[in-house]
Amino acid sequence: MKLPLDVVGIGNAIVDVLAHADDALLAKHGMAKGSMALIDAAKADSLYGAMGSAVEVSGGSAANTIAGVASFGGKAAFVGRVRNDQLGNIFRHDIKAIGVEFETAAASHGAPTGRCLVFVTPDAQRTMQTFLGACVELGPADIDADQIARAKITYLEGYLWDPPQAKEAFRKAADLAHNADRKVALSLSDTFCVKRYQQEFLHLLDEHLDVLFANEAEIAALYDVKSFDDAVKAVRGRCDIAVLTRSEKGAVIVTDKETIPVPAVKPEKLVDTTGAGDLFAAGFLYGLSQDRTLGDCGRLGALAAAEIISHVGARPEVSLKDLAKKHGL
Amino acid sequence: MKLPLDVVGIGNAIVDVLAHADDALLAKHGMAKGSMALIDAAKADSLYGAMGSAVEVSGGSAANTIAGVASFGGKAAFVGRVRNDQLGNIFRHDIKAIGVEFETAAASHGAPTGRCLVFVTPDAQRTMQTFLGACVELGPADIDADQIARAKITYLEGYLWDPPQAKEAFRKAADLAHNADRKVALSLSDTFCVKRYQQEFLHLLDEHLDVLFANEAEIAALYDVKSFDDAVKAVRGRCDIAVLTRSEKGAVIVTDKETIPVPAVKPEKLVDTTGAGDLFAAGFLYGLSQDRTLGDCGRLGALAAAEIISHVGARPEVSLKDLAKKHGL
Repeated sequence: MKLPLDVVGIGNAIVDVLAHADDALLAKHGMAKGSMALIDAAKADSLYGAMGSAVEVSGGSAANTIAGVASFGGKAAFVGRVRNDQLGNIFRHDIKAIGVEFETAAASHGAPTGRCLVFVTPDAQRTMQTFLGACVELGPADIDADQIARAKITYLEGYLWDPPQAKEAFRKAADLAHNADRKVALSLSDTFCVKRYQQEFLHLLDEHLDVLFANEAEIAALYDVKSFDDAVKAVRGRCDIAVLTRSEKGAVIVTDKETIPVPAVKPEKLVDTTGAGDLFAAGFLYGLSQDRTLGDCGRLGALAAAEIISHVGARPEVSLKDLAKKHGL
Repeated sequence: MKLPLDVVGIGNAIVDVLAHADDALLAKHGMAKGSMALIDAAKADSLYGAMGSAVEVSGGSAANTIAGVASFGGKAAFVGRVRNDQLGNIFRHDIKAIGVEFETAAASHGAPTGRCLVFVTPDAQRTMQTFLGACVELGPADIDADQIARAKITYLEGYLWDPPQAKEAFRKAADLAHNADRKVALSLSDTFCVKRYQQEFLHLLDEHLDVLFANEAEIAALYDVKSFDDAVKAVRGRCDIAVLTRSEKGAVIVTDKETIPVPAVKPEKLVDTTGAGDLFAAGFLYGLSQDRTLGDCGRLGALAAAEIISHVGARPEVSLKDLAKKHGL
């Protein structure tokens, strides 16, 4: 008999390779600052060669969120595919070390564990180039009906639309969650990701979603609108809760009847914005799983986002549970 | 025709796996705080299982020093053995990315790339458990006579006494350097390392060494003395230059006729002492290769040590060349 879960996250299992870089390097290799692009193995090798001395940290958008939920004290699980190689072992170790249930079998052949080359510029922005590797093996067979039913919320990253069979896993998980009277949440992940799958995401919103996470650019891209106000109007009523993050302007929570502003929390020092959105989602989902008010959910999200941008990497360096307590949350 | 070098370092090629830990975890697993212990593959697996979520960064004592020399703008090379696996690729990438010549062939079979589990306690001390892995394959055949002759200084870590054939590589390199009228420097590495090889290190001092690096505990262990003053007396005249580091008390440079105190540089924030000794050596060796005064060599060392202890990990996060310029060095 397994324990109940607060949140199960499904996403690409990725190890981040982070290095400082300047704008000239981004320009030379045609990288669009602040975004995520998919690259193949050969491009990953050549870009890695152009990259400075780096640090390796477990990453992956939904995996970062799940690590955040666990750091708040939530009971969490992750589903994603690594290979049985050194980077895969690192990913597995790191997520299990913080108490997250992670039972997806590692691939024993094929592409190596996925990695994301993260170029951090002096303005603290991150530009990501992702080689999906073993992530492309994730499919519906990796979704465990019992695990989904045990979780109050199933959280999915938009990036799952990239690997060929992962969207089937995504759909299966969403159906299972709804059949078990559970909530389904989605992050739009990235503007280019929204552009790749705009119609499918719009369709999903009508069918499957209780909670949507998006930043300003992503929600504007989803609805082809030019202002944030228009985006708020467009998303209202399309899902129970839309959480729209706006960097230093904080966030806005949009429900059928309410528009709840959430102030940003100022970080001690702005070092690297990698994981800001992932960790906002972590705080919000943790709060939601504990039946906190939407305002409190937003404040927990803003607090976690401020912690993550104050250092390099997208996994919390302090206990978010302690941090929340310190801030009276 | 290859270029002249300032410093060539020979050491264990290691990837550091760093995680925060508390004193209770050290006690539970019988680890001696602040020291380095050697572990086998099975122990490495079980300790890794007990370790929290970690960060991977290229390490290795002499390799960190060489990375520091390169960061100061010195021309540097490294000799050490990795395997042709993912961690080995990371090590190779990181050291080459900062402009270091690294031509030691990777092992194509046998143990994986060596790693050091680094447990960082809240007092910023690091406790290290090292699985040498592929490092044990380093031998005299890896020493290139031309490369040693091209370098003003050959720098060796005491830890090289641990892998069975590496001390032969060490002796060969020291002989080649002296035959080419070059300097040889050694770091005592660690108190336990000194205890393991005390007689051999004493013998080396009489035969082979121009520069010795040691901290207070290491030099006391080498001469079986109880006070720092006695250690200074014991080492004087045994090598041209002894550089004795004393953490927040700075360092003392001891030559035949002089005793030069070097004040410590206060770090912005004390986070993780991993690499403090390695980077002190980097600054000192860089200065020496540029014919700076011994006092300036010490100040460059203290500056580099202060940078490294202000963040997690033992490779510089900023350009030490720029930092030195900012401090008028």
